[in-house]
Amino acid sequence: MANSQPIEWLGNKVKLLDQTRLPQEEVYLELTDYHDVASAIKEMKIRGAPAIGVAAAYGIALGVLKTSAKSKDEFLIKLKGITQAMAATRPTAQNLFRVINRMKQIAEAGEDVDEIRKALVSEAIKIHSEEAEATKKLAQFGAELIQNGFTILTHCNTGALATAGYGTALGVIKQAKEQGKNIRVFATETRPRLQGARLTAWELKRASIPFTLITDSMAGYFISRGKISCVIIGADRITSNGDTANKIGSYTLAVLAMEHGIPFYVAAPTTTIDLSLASGDDIPIEERSPQEVTHIQGVSIAPEGTQALNPAFDVTPHYYISAIITEKGIIKEPYIERLKKIA
Amino acid sequence: MANSQPIEWLGNKVKLLDQTRLPQEEVYLELTDYHDVASAIKEMKIRGAPAIGVAAAYGIALGVLKTSAKSKDEFLIKLKGITQAMAATRPTAQNLFRVINRMKQIAEAGEDVDEIRKALVSEAIKIHSEEAEATKKLAQFGAELIQNGFTILTHCNTGALATAGYGTALGVIKQAKEQGKNIRVFATETRPRLQGARLTAWELKRASIPFTLITDSMAGYFISRGKISCVIIGADRITSNGDTANKIGSYTLAVLAMEHGIPFYVAAPTTTIDLSLASGDDIPIEERSPQEVTHIQGVSIAPEGTQALNPAFDVTPHYYISAIITEKGIIKEPYIERLKKIA
Repeated sequence: MANSQPIEWLGNKVKLLDQTRLPQEEVYLELTDYHDVASAIKEMKIRGAPAIGVAAAYGIALGVLKTSAKSKDEFLIKLKGITQAMAATRPTAQNLFRVINRMKQIAEAGEDVDEIRKALVSEAIKIHSEEAEATKKLAQFGAELIQNGFTILTHCNTGALATAGYGTALGVIKQAKEQGKNIRVFATETRPRLQGARLTAWELKRASIPFTLITDSMAGYFISRGKISCVIIGADRITSNGDTANKIGSYTLAVLAMEHGIPFYVAAPTTTIDLSLASGDDIPIEERSPQEVTHIQGVSIAPEGTQALNPAFDVTPHYYISAIITEKGIIKEPYIERLKKIA
Repeated sequence: MANSQPIEWLGNKVKLLDQTRLPQEEVYLELTDYHDVASAIKEMKIRGAPAIGVAAAYGIALGVLKTSAKSKDEFLIKLKGITQAMAATRPTAQNLFRVINRMKQIAEAGEDVDEIRKALVSEAIKIHSEEAEATKKLAQFGAELIQNGFTILTHCNTGALATAGYGTALGVIKQAKEQGKNIRVFATETRPRLQGARLTAWELKRASIPFTLITDSMAGYFISRGKISCVIIGADRITSNGDTANKIGSYTLAVLAMEHGIPFYVAAPTTTIDLSLASGDDIPIEERSPQEVTHIQGVSIAPEGTQALNPAFDVTPHYYISAIITEKGIIKEPYIERLKKIA
């Protein structure tokens, strides 16, 4: 697959591929201010839970490089402001909060402010490479589940763009293809933000994997007609019992998969697991602007004054999930015992 | 509700509200050639199974008014060409084929060609008023199922626009509102053609019924959180066992409704019932242009060269359907016995 890295650290800037402009245009942004990184995450110029984590890490690095704080106390106060800005971007993605905690711990452990700055930059780079490595590994585990001849349904975008690495669900698919398996993908367009039509289609095309684009409403039709071998999605947060928050529409695909007896897989690095939450009921679900529903690519599709709701994620209870694919192996029920061991 | 009749017979022309331009513009077309009526049906300027039937009836009337045929044999040959053009528009809507058969029978029963012309025009007008009357009646039956305080999920558009009458699923909702019940609607946008966002929202707004627009992918979220009291949809064809073809995405809503124990209702006039088919497996499913998926309102959303599929309907097996609401009453299992009596 051609290089399509969504984020790069340039020493004193963050280079981002603006995903809101794909597939029409490949526009790169170079950001020097952490506020701009926070805005880019909020506006989904970079998105996907693992990639959000990496972007937040670099955003924090940018922020602390610019602080004039001389004492550690002063530095920690500045850092708090920076991490709060990052935390306020997308409430559902667990990877974001992991990164924030990790960066805070590094800062607290340090003594000299200049040393802490360097340590935080190094840590951000390390987080990026760990996430990339994790998706590469989980893709190898996951590809074992993909048989030659499979037609795989996936939702939203979970490739390099979403992970700053190899990809989660789409990484599994790419790995199966690289193993020489003859596979085909059905990609849902993923309203409202059309990550499937815009981003997954773009990545699949570049990877020369044959695919068919469908609307979200068509998944049931193709599953019921036996056209789909399995469903694979990514995750934004997995609680200790295996319940999984992912892009709105994922839950519906899980119900359809179970109704028709096909496997439903979740692929995510262990950084997506949140053992502090007992179940999916506790996951905060981001509510985005109704305008994303009433408008498509800026064009109004509904009568003026139409009210809409826009939950960005839903929760799939663990009993719909055939397996969770991580960089530490493939996890099955009982998730509550097995996730504890790897997270 | 303000008048929003999608079709009117003007004696020698058919006046159509161009539904592809709603809600932005209310544009009326006056058609004098049956080919234009066939194109308007194909291009979904008029849509919804009952309204398609009415449009085809008027299209046939227009066609025969213009034929110069003098003998009955010659007339029947011309009529065959006209009905073939109508039959080639939308293969799934049963109402269309009922109308064609009915018009053919009238023609065959007549003797004098001028008398047959007059009889066909009268029959088209009668079909229109029967469909309007049927939806008014079925709405009254259906409203009994709607309790005060209900939040009703509906899909696609099934109102006056879709029926050239009062509406099927949306007619039931309007009737419940007119009975003074405090209700709320969740309307799915209904990709790819956005009939929910464009047309149902337009009708609900005019009827002052409070509603929330959601993407198709959000239905599972709101149903799983207990926000929906029941689902009501229309139908394009109902087979003798109760299996129902309706707008793509309907089947998924039925599976979700059953998973969460809420009723799933189908509302349709008996003209939608096709006793000649044993089950939904036999219903021809219209495949529309992939461009409706890769583009929204003419704007490309996917990379160039993206392959897409676009089945316009899916089939909900009868065992997911809590009741079928018709102008002859509310039908429940065993559909196979009960539909036979009313169709």
